[in-house]
Amino acid sequence: MKVGGQALRPIRALPGRDAIEIIDQRLLPHRLHFERLDTPALVHSAIREMWVRGAPLIGATAAYGLALQMNGDTGDHALEESAEMLRLARPTAVNLAWAIDRMLGTLRPLPPAARRGAAWDAADAIAEDDVQVNRSIGEHGLVLLREIAARRPGPVRVLTHCNAGWLATVDWGTATAPIYLAHQQGLPVEVWVDETRPRNQGASLTAWELGQAGVPHKLVADNAGGHLMQHGLVDIVFVGCDRVTARGDVCNKIGTYLKALAAHDNGVPFYVAMPISTLDRSLSDGLAEIPIEERSAREVTHISGRNAAGEFVEVQLVPDGTAAANPAFDVTPARLVSGLITERGVVAANASALAAL
Amino acid sequence: MKVGGQALRPIRALPGRDAIEIIDQRLLPHRLHFERLDTPALVHSAIREMWVRGAPLIGATAAYGLALQMNGDTGDHALEESAEMLRLARPTAVNLAWAIDRMLGTLRPLPPAARRGAAWDAADAIAEDDVQVNRSIGEHGLVLLREIAARRPGPVRVLTHCNAGWLATVDWGTATAPIYLAHQQGLPVEVWVDETRPRNQGASLTAWELGQAGVPHKLVADNAGGHLMQHGLVDIVFVGCDRVTARGDVCNKIGTYLKALAAHDNGVPFYVAMPISTLDRSLSDGLAEIPIEERSAREVTHISGRNAAGEFVEVQLVPDGTAAANPAFDVTPARLVSGLITERGVVAANASALAAL
Repeated sequence: MKVGGQALRPIRALPGRDAIEIIDQRLLPHRLHFERLDTPALVHSAIREMWVRGAPLIGATAAYGLALQMNGDTGDHALEESAEMLRLARPTAVNLAWAIDRMLGTLRPLPPAARRGAAWDAADAIAEDDVQVNRSIGEHGLVLLREIAARRPGPVRVLTHCNAGWLATVDWGTATAPIYLAHQQGLPVEVWVDETRPRNQGASLTAWELGQAGVPHKLVADNAGGHLMQHGLVDIVFVGCDRVTARGDVCNKIGTYLKALAAHDNGVPFYVAMPISTLDRSLSDGLAEIPIEERSAREVTHISGRNAAGEFVEVQLVPDGTAAANPAFDVTPARLVSGLITERGVVAANASALAAL
Repeated sequence: MKVGGQALRPIRALPGRDAIEIIDQRLLPHRLHFERLDTPALVHSAIREMWVRGAPLIGATAAYGLALQMNGDTGDHALEESAEMLRLARPTAVNLAWAIDRMLGTLRPLPPAARRGAAWDAADAIAEDDVQVNRSIGEHGLVLLREIAARRPGPVRVLTHCNAGWLATVDWGTATAPIYLAHQQGLPVEVWVDETRPRNQGASLTAWELGQAGVPHKLVADNAGGHLMQHGLVDIVFVGCDRVTARGDVCNKIGTYLKALAAHDNGVPFYVAMPISTLDRSLSDGLAEIPIEERSAREVTHISGRNAAGEFVEVQLVPDGTAAANPAFDVTPARLVSGLITERGVVAANASALAAL
């Protein structure tokens, strides 16, 4: 997508294949800063510390992490050790394991001397595939938006939670792909952006993306979505996902479940944009089986922003010594999901539809 | 309740009846500051700008605002004009109108010369009545906590949203009264505190209150409550209310509806602590009939806290120019409410039970 007229991606391999460059998303929306990463250990930090985040982007970044390993020791031991390190950088997104496994599937059969070029080619392919997958998700989701637009005048009002935008992928985003396509094709859309506490990916990333693309949007506190739906102000909900089980339970950013409940209670369609790589066929009951990452209490008790002087400042929001819990994801049961928007079309959130994919 | 061993209230009439003193709640939890108010206009500002907040406390504060007016011009015109100004300070809480009407009912029949003393007596009575009402709500709510404690070992885990604590009332709080009574009587309780964006009354006020009282508690992002309930970590939800309709629809802080949906979906009892003064018998369909206050976008786009140097700082969370919507309350339909805890006992959220009160 374009920023200030220039096409950008949140990750790219640098010419010469000795490093990659990522957008450090911790600094957005206040500063657009590119960071050069040239070792698997740096890539591991970038994933764990959330310089990059978003299930598809985590997968692509980890793939490049293995490619960077292949710039040095290309032996079996180094390959497997780097793969394990990268796999453990974040626990929830299945794309991370998927990308590592795809890389290992390519590299393990090769002699060490042939692995370097193959690794960079494979990582590039994962990145390019992601762009095509998201573009396809966009086209299938666009059909849903056109159906709503055909039923009544005025812009289609989409609510989204967290950032499943191009910053969470290699390009287009998942949940945002239909929105960007609609906007480019002149179909009026307006987006309600959940701020998405505690890390505020909606307020800092989705609002920034939509603003750069010129898509009309309004930020709301996470608490507001139910009220908006009760008053008929939301036509459809689009969210991303970090893992979907074989029966269609959806693990996504904490708070997604609450929005799904409100959508269900108010007859608002609730769609999940899901690259098929996010499907984890090994799991069924998402609530019982998906491990949920518990992140630092400090993400809840403190927050960073820009002060009047333009500097980044962290402030404490709570009394000294306040304990906080910080589960980063929740699981939305399949019964609350209207459909899953995949690169092969919209499918129902149930075991038979997902088995047929 | 006690702070540092000293009994405190968020409002009190000063000796001599020439002013009142309130806690400026905008500065909590970082600073406990008392502000002296000696004119109805100052009281109006204190309510409008949320130096004081919480439906019961707003009512008592407005009553003292009229008493302050009676320190000066006690004529009919001044009385009615001050009453109207104070009535309009905040639109949602019915207690505000209720307290003004109770004051007018006392003062209108009196000759102007007799109004000053009567006004202070009436405002004191409203404040003392609130304390007794909340204490009674606490006793009725405590029965619910004891029932849960009798069913299984371990502390009773209560989730609460916003601040319906003693800072929102003259003492005890509404939703917190059963919690404080349980704690005082040795019944173990643990509280999940929703931070309650955008103004963070949970993080800044409820967490502070509970910490001062020594009640175990953990802060969570508003997004987390559904996840906690899905995993059996919440035994009961207690919230306050700003207005309840004749059929039991509950208007309370934005986001309450989402927690009620999650409680319903997970079989968690959802109780609303409701002084009978909060019942608005003139309304039935809360969603259609209760006006919802839309507050400044800046409450969503900026946040204040304490920096490392101990100073108050406001920071911007969003890209420049981001628009935001900020509805301050939502309506929870009666069907999602397990019961209303009033000073006369727990009643069902339906028209016949409320008519019988």
